[in-house]
Amino acid sequence: MSERENHHSQHQRILELNRALNDGMFVHVRRMLAQMPACDVALLLQSTPVAGRKILWQLTDPEQQGEILEELNEDAMESILKMMDPENLAAATEGMDIDDLSYVLRSLPADIYQQVLEQMDSEERHRVEIALAYPEDTAGSLMNNDTIALRPDISVDVVLRYLRLRGELPEATDALFVVDKDNKYLGDISLARLVTVDPKEQVAAIMGKRPERIIPVSMHEGQVAQLFERHDWISAPVVDPNGQLVGRITIDDVVDIIREDAEHSMMGMAGVDDDEDTFAPIWQSTRGRTLWLAINLLTALMAASISNLFENTLAQMATLAVLMTIVPSQGGIAGTQTLAVVIRGLAVGHIGESNTRWLILKEVAIGVLNGIIWAIVIALVVTLWKDSIQLGLISAAAMFADMFMAGLAGVCIPLVMKKIHIDPALAGGMVLTTVTDTVGLFAFLGIATVLLNHHIAI
Amino acid sequence: MSERENHHSQHQRILELNRALNDGMFVHVRRMLAQMPACDVALLLQSTPVAGRKILWQLTDPEQQGEILEELNEDAMESILKMMDPENLAAATEGMDIDDLSYVLRSLPADIYQQVLEQMDSEERHRVEIALAYPEDTAGSLMNNDTIALRPDISVDVVLRYLRLRGELPEATDALFVVDKDNKYLGDISLARLVTVDPKEQVAAIMGKRPERIIPVSMHEGQVAQLFERHDWISAPVVDPNGQLVGRITIDDVVDIIREDAEHSMMGMAGVDDDEDTFAPIWQSTRGRTLWLAINLLTALMAASISNLFENTLAQMATLAVLMTIVPSQGGIAGTQTLAVVIRGLAVGHIGESNTRWLILKEVAIGVLNGIIWAIVIALVVTLWKDSIQLGLISAAAMFADMFMAGLAGVCIPLVMKKIHIDPALAGGMVLTTVTDTVGLFAFLGIATVLLNHHIAI
Repeated sequence: MSERENHHSQHQRILELNRALNDGMFVHVRRMLAQMPACDVALLLQSTPVAGRKILWQLTDPEQQGEILEELNEDAMESILKMMDPENLAAATEGMDIDDLSYVLRSLPADIYQQVLEQMDSEERHRVEIALAYPEDTAGSLMNNDTIALRPDISVDVVLRYLRLRGELPEATDALFVVDKDNKYLGDISLARLVTVDPKEQVAAIMGKRPERIIPVSMHEGQVAQLFERHDWISAPVVDPNGQLVGRITIDDVVDIIREDAEHSMMGMAGVDDDEDTFAPIWQSTRGRTLWLAINLLTALMAASISNLFENTLAQMATLAVLMTIVPSQGGIAGTQTLAVVIRGLAVGHIGESNTRWLILKEVAIGVLNGIIWAIVIALVVTLWKDSIQLGLISAAAMFADMFMAGLAGVCIPLVMKKIHIDPALAGGMVLTTVTDTVGLFAFLGIATVLLNHHIAI
Repeated sequence: MSERENHHSQHQRILELNRALNDGMFVHVRRMLAQMPACDVALLLQSTPVAGRKILWQLTDPEQQGEILEELNEDAMESILKMMDPENLAAATEGMDIDDLSYVLRSLPADIYQQVLEQMDSEERHRVEIALAYPEDTAGSLMNNDTIALRPDISVDVVLRYLRLRGELPEATDALFVVDKDNKYLGDISLARLVTVDPKEQVAAIMGKRPERIIPVSMHEGQVAQLFERHDWISAPVVDPNGQLVGRITIDDVVDIIREDAEHSMMGMAGVDDDEDTFAPIWQSTRGRTLWLAINLLTALMAASISNLFENTLAQMATLAVLMTIVPSQGGIAGTQTLAVVIRGLAVGHIGESNTRWLILKEVAIGVLNGIIWAIVIALVVTLWKDSIQLGLISAAAMFADMFMAGLAGVCIPLVMKKIHIDPALAGGMVLTTVTDTVGLFAFLGIATVLLNHHIAI
């Protein structure tokens, strides 16, 4: 089955479901949904506009709803949670893994959350407490408490007999953890090791220590993701400040973080909320994009107010109006290139105090080089086009100034924002283009004005 | 250890290494490097400007060099490969996993590749053949051939005894595969299942079938990543068109693809090569960004040539020059928002034939809504600022037209590009802003010209 076929069959199935829905064949749809794994139902829901999503959801198997919720992204999940009553919600969350429970509950409005809580029995409520005990975005909110812990002084044979007695292991279990009698984390044994060593060995003798693999419960999830990615882990133990084992984090949750982090940069730079549901209602999407458009209008008006300063100059010579947009456009792109490289470098942890100075020097040097290259190009183009060496030289000077600023601002803006805890992926692009627009217009129209006022023919 | 401390200690270590390097304490550096795991050395190399990178590389343990190479991203790896001679290269690739071997060899220039091949013995050359047997970007190039295959008619007990005899398992082994005598893939047994079932059970009785988990060797790597992500797999079997088991793909390689895919969109939209090495030499980075700047200059000149058509109008009224940049700026942002949402939707597989029409209608509707909102806002702002209702109305009309086009072009450009196999993340933004700039300028200056030529006071 090729990629095309697979992708095709996925959307083929959606088309078939849509047709069945339109024909009112609800029993047929219900049966189709029941036969699909939860992750496919989730994909289906996320690929369906909100109106149809509602109907589909009502046709899913209530037993499966918890599992489907876990698989949805935040925005799509919220659209579903809105249509569930507290009773159904409480039922759906029953038996959910702690990390998924935390994910779902954190998305609920406060009043609904209270109502759901009231529907739960005391055991479930206790699970909720555990799930919400740690702040969002930390290892604590990402971990699951389904660890299997062993004592160091037993033999592998005993472990194997215990496991057979216990039956099925939690998902993505690649290692068992070893703790002392105070639940202090001592080390781990991978299943791969467990099945290859002599059963007479003691746990203490064959366990791995790997202290670098122990994740503190307060570690930021982005940092957790970097560690998993760098070390190719499948799961890792989470410990509290006393070194006691409190849970484990598995790669499947980390993959979501990695995807979200990377998407966040791209969506942020484009001025959209990275949670935006592709198939959200029109009005909701419009509202979500308004803030960014409002900020952009302000910066566009600022740029306009700069050219407004030079209205007299523009009135004397309309050709300046024609040419004045070129330099800011080129400066904006060059600055965005630098910005993107720096934001990516910060995200993957390649940029730190050890190399910041070098990086700034490098990007400024690129700005200077770009300035020289594009100043020459624009000088030639404008001179030939407008038959005026003077206009060519003005464009070249403005281009050099703007490209230099683009390099400097492109590297400094994200670094400074990071320092003062503003997300450069969100705000960096706007600030940057404001700088490059301002400098580009000021340089171009400013130089032209000086020359005109000194009655130098241009 | 908190995130800050961890990150801190990483760059602390780099600072310390730099100091030792500057002081010429090479023995000390060599010892420090030897004590670091390969993934940390790789991070260190990638966080170091190319000049220092060369010295650091010479101080790494040759035994570890293969492992370090595997961990580097493409651009950083190329900078290192350039300084190795074929003999060292052949030595470093010895014992590499097939998938990593394929990754490294594909980065070599053809002549060096030949020389490296000549340094290898016949067994190694055979491994190279296997590694390069499948096209880049397919499951075949991503897989490793370190599978452990079992026959269906043996008991779990026999499997366990075999594993103990065999010793250590390949990394990220979470399941063993079951094949018939022709090596046809039959199913798998997770290690978790292996340690929990009764040892007297037959492999055939306890193996999982899960046909949806079988990956065809020709599947595109992006599709593989989507499947892993959606189904939370840790490893999956790869089969050839005859259904024979040829290898397995593990989550650690998939994580790299997921990261690269998401980064690709963000870097592509910003106009930089996603392989760009943050610490590449200045000239190399400048060169890499030139193409994009050249294309942008062309589009900027195109926009300028549009205002050039209206030079007479601009000469009559300089205020138009001041205001003419606002609408294209707003249109560009609105279009980019739509573009980003669609590119993300395509990347995660939420968009297909089943919902394309709905999506186009949605984004056009958002364009209309945005058009109404920002037309009213700009009408008010311009009327108050320039004390001219006419200018306000011209701005409003142009804004409406451009926001509508932004929605339409923002959704259609990536969909069409995808159809004709052009990467929308790379080319989409440029084409889009060319459309929004053109429409914005044309509408604004065109309407103004018509009014002026009819001697209507504006």
